[in-house]
Amino acid sequence: MAVARGVLLDLDGVLYVGDALLPGAGEALARLRGRGVPVRFVTNTTRRPRRAIRAGLSAMGLAVREDELVTPARAACAWLKERALSSHLLVHPDLEEDFADFRADGEAAAVVIGDAGDGFTYGALNRAFRLLMSGAPLLALAKNRYFREADGLSLDAGPFVAALEFASGRRAEVIGKPTPGFFHAAVAGLGCRPEDTIMVGDDVESDVNGAIAAGLQGILVRTGKFREEDTGQLDPKGVLVSDIGAAVDRILATTTDG
Amino acid sequence: MAVARGVLLDLDGVLYVGDALLPGAGEALARLRGRGVPVRFVTNTTRRPRRAIRAGLSAMGLAVREDELVTPARAACAWLKERALSSHLLVHPDLEEDFADFRADGEAAAVVIGDAGDGFTYGALNRAFRLLMSGAPLLALAKNRYFREADGLSLDAGPFVAALEFASGRRAEVIGKPTPGFFHAAVAGLGCRPEDTIMVGDDVESDVNGAIAAGLQGILVRTGKFREEDTGQLDPKGVLVSDIGAAVDRILATTTDG
Repeated sequence: MAVARGVLLDLDGVLYVGDALLPGAGEALARLRGRGVPVRFVTNTTRRPRRAIRAGLSAMGLAVREDELVTPARAACAWLKERALSSHLLVHPDLEEDFADFRADGEAAAVVIGDAGDGFTYGALNRAFRLLMSGAPLLALAKNRYFREADGLSLDAGPFVAALEFASGRRAEVIGKPTPGFFHAAVAGLGCRPEDTIMVGDDVESDVNGAIAAGLQGILVRTGKFREEDTGQLDPKGVLVSDIGAAVDRILATTTDG
Repeated sequence: MAVARGVLLDLDGVLYVGDALLPGAGEALARLRGRGVPVRFVTNTTRRPRRAIRAGLSAMGLAVREDELVTPARAACAWLKERALSSHLLVHPDLEEDFADFRADGEAAAVVIGDAGDGFTYGALNRAFRLLMSGAPLLALAKNRYFREADGLSLDAGPFVAALEFASGRRAEVIGKPTPGFFHAAVAGLGCRPEDTIMVGDDVESDVNGAIAAGLQGILVRTGKFREEDTGQLDPKGVLVSDIGAAVDRILATTTDG
């Protein structure tokens, strides 16, 4: 594994599960901080605003600066700003605050779709569809197929992105992991080159193989959503370790100071 | 155009628009009946049950026998019966009566999806998704992208079929036009061969080109949803006429008696 100058950490399944810190996660992060390794926290969640994610981390004893948290909503706002577009939101109500500066107000709008949950009604989807048919671009915060809930698998944003793509005959611009642009934006915030950056995650496709495809290094942890069969999917350049503590051991062994 | 022994007629846009008969439609149908040409009425609508479709035709003065009306719901019931499956319905509430003999009752079920309109809630889609993930087949009454309403275009069943296909990683079995099996089932009811049957419709892709691809003959009428640019899409074997009256002129000119 090459020398690492910066680290990207997935949140859910790497540092915590639910609202409980994983064993050794706090200490592992403190060791990275102690060695001055710049870190970004890179999540695909589109059901919680940045404020709530940071509050949750803080409640678990992890202090994360505003600029250290990389979410699809933040990347989407940068995308909208670049194009001087407002947003027509088809997202979870809790996420709307992250788009406060980009609300539709009569100017040109993009349809922004995330995991809206019960907000995916026929009426809301139809309003988004009509905007697409009148020329609005479609910006997908993520295109995950489903996620696991306590009572079973549940539809994520991806199927609804696919529905609007099929209806409009147009392709969505996807923002979150494993999009290379999402990793590159996080890496740019670190001031590193992609090849000097290590992504640590529990999702073999979205976190680890995606990062490697984007030119980063990748470490897969055996916590969170990891399943033994994921090892067969892991990119040969990827590294498999037990947990965040072992990942940090590995990173620090290859990190040059200064 | 070869000799015709049987005729398939689309309904909306060919015989009527809204609840008004098109000029000459009643007389044209009477001429077909008078010459003893067997007819089937072939519609893709999945928002109205068979009973309501026949009642609407009757109110416009058109008597249509139960066995003459071919709908995706009827084809779906035949499909379910063949496989001894019950149905988990994701369809418009008005359509449920057409599946009265195939309601889920604990045995193996297929997910049957039509244009459910406001019935497409997150919860209903998620229940269907979970059944698919536990092995249920997905039967789509149609896969149309959208339809035109008074206030604009609206999402049809197709986008929701695409959503469940994307989420489950499985393909739907599509039942309605332009599926060859749907045309062939209607032709079988006539007791004709496909090449001796003419389909008359206002939808160049779904009615006319679809019928020709299934081995039938096809006539496109300039009524209903017909737009001048459709002529460029028409299969070279297809025939273009002004309306149902002209279509019947053409059919009777090539029909042998007895």
